[in-house]
Amino acid sequence: MAAASAAIVSTSCLRSSSQSTIRYISLYLNGRSFNLRGDVLLRKSKILKDYNILYPSFHHISSHPTITVKRRYFSCSVGSEMVDKLSDVEQAEKVREFRKRLRIVDVKGGPDEGLDRLGQKLVVKGWVRTSRVQSTVTFLEVNDGSCLSNMQCVINPDAEGYDQVESGLITTGASVWVEGVVVVSQGSKQKVELNVAKFIMVGRSDSSFPIQKKRVTREFLRTKAHLRPRTNTFGAVSRVRNALAYATHKFFQENGFVWVSSPIITASDCEGAGEQFCVTTLIPSSGESMDSPIGSVPKTAGGLIDWSQDFFGKPAFLTVSGQLNAETYASALSDVYTFGPTFRAENSNTSRHLAEFWMIEPELAFADLSDDMACATAYLQYLVKYVLENCKEDMDFFNTWIEKGIIDRLSNVAEKDFVQLTYTDAIELLLRAKKKFEFPVKWGCDLQSEHERYITEVAYAGSPVIIRDYPKEIKAFYMRQNEDGKTVAAMDLVVPRVGELIGGSQREERLDYLDARLDELKLNKESYWWYRDLRRFGSVPHAGFGLGFERLVQFATGIDNIRDVIPFPRTPGSAEF
Amino acid sequence: MAAASAAIVSTSCLRSSSQSTIRYISLYLNGRSFNLRGDVLLRKSKILKDYNILYPSFHHISSHPTITVKRRYFSCSVGSEMVDKLSDVEQAEKVREFRKRLRIVDVKGGPDEGLDRLGQKLVVKGWVRTSRVQSTVTFLEVNDGSCLSNMQCVINPDAEGYDQVESGLITTGASVWVEGVVVVSQGSKQKVELNVAKFIMVGRSDSSFPIQKKRVTREFLRTKAHLRPRTNTFGAVSRVRNALAYATHKFFQENGFVWVSSPIITASDCEGAGEQFCVTTLIPSSGESMDSPIGSVPKTAGGLIDWSQDFFGKPAFLTVSGQLNAETYASALSDVYTFGPTFRAENSNTSRHLAEFWMIEPELAFADLSDDMACATAYLQYLVKYVLENCKEDMDFFNTWIEKGIIDRLSNVAEKDFVQLTYTDAIELLLRAKKKFEFPVKWGCDLQSEHERYITEVAYAGSPVIIRDYPKEIKAFYMRQNEDGKTVAAMDLVVPRVGELIGGSQREERLDYLDARLDELKLNKESYWWYRDLRRFGSVPHAGFGLGFERLVQFATGIDNIRDVIPFPRTPGSAEF
Repeated sequence: MAAASAAIVSTSCLRSSSQSTIRYISLYLNGRSFNLRGDVLLRKSKILKDYNILYPSFHHISSHPTITVKRRYFSCSVGSEMVDKLSDVEQAEKVREFRKRLRIVDVKGGPDEGLDRLGQKLVVKGWVRTSRVQSTVTFLEVNDGSCLSNMQCVINPDAEGYDQVESGLITTGASVWVEGVVVVSQGSKQKVELNVAKFIMVGRSDSSFPIQKKRVTREFLRTKAHLRPRTNTFGAVSRVRNALAYATHKFFQENGFVWVSSPIITASDCEGAGEQFCVTTLIPSSGESMDSPIGSVPKTAGGLIDWSQDFFGKPAFLTVSGQLNAETYASALSDVYTFGPTFRAENSNTSRHLAEFWMIEPELAFADLSDDMACATAYLQYLVKYVLENCKEDMDFFNTWIEKGIIDRLSNVAEKDFVQLTYTDAIELLLRAKKKFEFPVKWGCDLQSEHERYITEVAYAGSPVIIRDYPKEIKAFYMRQNEDGKTVAAMDLVVPRVGELIGGSQREERLDYLDARLDELKLNKESYWWYRDLRRFGSVPHAGFGLGFERLVQFATGIDNIRDVIPFPRTPGSAEF
Repeated sequence: MAAASAAIVSTSCLRSSSQSTIRYISLYLNGRSFNLRGDVLLRKSKILKDYNILYPSFHHISSHPTITVKRRYFSCSVGSEMVDKLSDVEQAEKVREFRKRLRIVDVKGGPDEGLDRLGQKLVVKGWVRTSRVQSTVTFLEVNDGSCLSNMQCVINPDAEGYDQVESGLITTGASVWVEGVVVVSQGSKQKVELNVAKFIMVGRSDSSFPIQKKRVTREFLRTKAHLRPRTNTFGAVSRVRNALAYATHKFFQENGFVWVSSPIITASDCEGAGEQFCVTTLIPSSGESMDSPIGSVPKTAGGLIDWSQDFFGKPAFLTVSGQLNAETYASALSDVYTFGPTFRAENSNTSRHLAEFWMIEPELAFADLSDDMACATAYLQYLVKYVLENCKEDMDFFNTWIEKGIIDRLSNVAEKDFVQLTYTDAIELLLRAKKKFEFPVKWGCDLQSEHERYITEVAYAGSPVIIRDYPKEIKAFYMRQNEDGKTVAAMDLVVPRVGELIGGSQREERLDYLDARLDELKLNKESYWWYRDLRRFGSVPHAGFGLGFERLVQFATGIDNIRDVIPFPRTPGSAEF
């Protein structure tokens, strides 16, 4: 850096320089002067000013590691530390660039299935699914989780690292690093394979690896939740689950919704009683908590649990829904959505229930039930199209192995018009049906899964159906009362195979109606003070719905048991991993 | 629909038709025959077969609502219900189309700030921020949360609904529906305004609305968490928070990572003791839970809490990190990330701690610490660029009102090379610093916020710095031991103002090293059986990091108190709303 003989700029001048034009600044360092361009300085000085740091950055003169600073030209607060800085900047390495890794899907996922990469030398890193050792050649199927397809790796005895093949180390479950050239495959199952030049065993896997080639049941795999994503089925479920989550964000973001994180722990009384998990620090939670004496729980003189000593000063629970909170944000930002975990302490050991599951709850301001239904329809169709377009290979797998016809079922949902009918019409339809239902049908009853599935699968031949305007007695207090006085503006979207996938409603925005309903249900109005406030200050018609994310994954993959569509299912008696 | 004289296809034939070519099918209905094209049928028959429903859809012949079906041509399981279906399909309405609503940001957010819409008639729906009633004209500032900007609405006495202005109903906080024409604004604060033709008061707001024009403190607003998103500051924070969340998903998705939902409730023993919330159903959680008698908690004969009667059959807790679970998925899918809530039952009433906060935890397989640092750097720079590009107006607001210079600070992060230095070098740097630290510095000590901020703010003049290779004693058991035997491959990314924003490490993938460390720390190896399994079956070098989402929002907005960057903060004694 060239020395210069310009005027020395004092620190006070530097401090006020953010608004003035400085063309250059000269510094005397260890008897030598250095020139810094004003534009660099100007930018920095603005930043540094905010921290009361009054020197120009030395990043830019790093070619002189040993120079020292003459203190008098700098503010005393930091001037004396210049030396450190200079040498440290010298020592520090840059962080290297992050590059997207080459994955098997990048090779085999294109329209050419890899033929466009013929002759390319590349590295595959993954886990061995199968190996076939023959006398002169060894075939490895390597999977890296980026797609269902394995990369077939062909190892000849002249490949570097072939001794590891000979030692019998290459077993199912082992992790490997393979370098080779893409060639046309001799086999019929894939278009290309890797002709291996170099092979490195990264991590062995002995014969106790529980997921061997032979088929294992999904029940067994639930006990191996840490390894099951290495199977075809659970790998595919993970990718489709991921696609559905991302498509959810994309859909709402593209439509101007704001993601809101509703609280997980809540001491709010308006969540409704029962079936909630209590969250507490009253019970000692040390490693020895299995031996917690009951006497260690704080109690009042009257023998009651002393909630005032709990973390939140009163009983707190895990949320069952973020809707009421989402309404507060919709009443400010117009359109919002939540996407987070919710909980039910329900003792249901079924293939449809989890104690912990994820929910998506959009809430639309200045919207009525028709807007709500339109949004739910557009959202579901977006999801289905997204998955059909972006997860072709995985969907083909489900179509072949899990639910024959699932692609047609989903295409139907993506393409067909959704229909709506009122609860009253739905009841009539069910009454006219000649089918015998387990649960008898009459106006006022809640619809069971068998009824919903009859409507969507039989009566509407596979079209999703929205049933609306339910009797108020079977729906929540916050749903908007219809003019008939008997029904509320609720809607359930039912789909083939799964039944109810989405439930929503227009919310009661009229304070007098809301209060009357709270009174009818003997709910404590005081507890709802903030929810009622929304109706006192700029209340607007608004509506929303909830979608259980795991039900959606079941719907999109055909997987029967909900425990197989979430990485680590929580059910009664089971919170392992 | 044309009648046809083709052969009648029996149900058994239809059933097997998914693989055969059917050109058309004729049905005799009430003495008349109907022809269906084979392609429709073929698609349907595949679907229907899976449900054992053996008829073609009647959706396509809905122009004949009254026809009845001759049963003999249909399977008896559903054939008799054809009549219902036909008439019901007729009754059902289509769900209407979902359209993105016109928001104020759509009008004012473009480069022309609305001038491109001059003369357009449009509707604005939102909440009144201020109203100025003059003798001949009334100015309303209406905000819909889509952006910081209000739409200035000018109401003349000839506007429809002007009587509501005269009645004095238009107050701060009220919700309104305004139709008008976009005109050039006479004021200097905006380029366009709305010349109102029609005005509807949607929801009133009386003078008790707590957020009046006068400035209110953020402390006060925390008690009004349901209304505070209607302020400029909290509206802007909500939008930037949303942008950071979406940018997070975009970054990882574009780089081939799979989102994994790590469990929230865990009975796994390897989360580490202490500072966890207990999740239980042993304590009755009814509406009257304030009066829970201690005797209602199940206990064993020995006076211990009887965990076997708890929901999960043993003590369960809220997760403090999803990392160990994410590692299991990285060992199958290669690159994954979590984004979910985590919890600390830490009794810290500071501006930096929450009991419930969101975390992002990526995990990269076949990766070392350098890959990890590169990923963290690229991710953080992506976030900052995304917010600067997509939240310009909100960032200008923060720059003016919250933290002067924040845009420069963030631009610096987006543009500057991040540097790395070892913990050992960092200690030397701090020892040489002339600054007096509250916490004394020596090799082996944990770095405090004052140390981290000195390094990034002073020594590196605002550059983010990654400090790596910490003493193993101050880091977690799972971090990979370096060759010196004293340090581990950990890294902390520190940034100006916030200090540590990201903490990560390469994980110990060698079972013998991991076991030795578990033994040293007297941790129970049995509890870690599944974590150790990852090292037994195809172990790979892998690395990851964690980022506290609310710290990130603080970093990006300049908001001092972490309780103001999450919608409903949970802290000791506080879980309201």
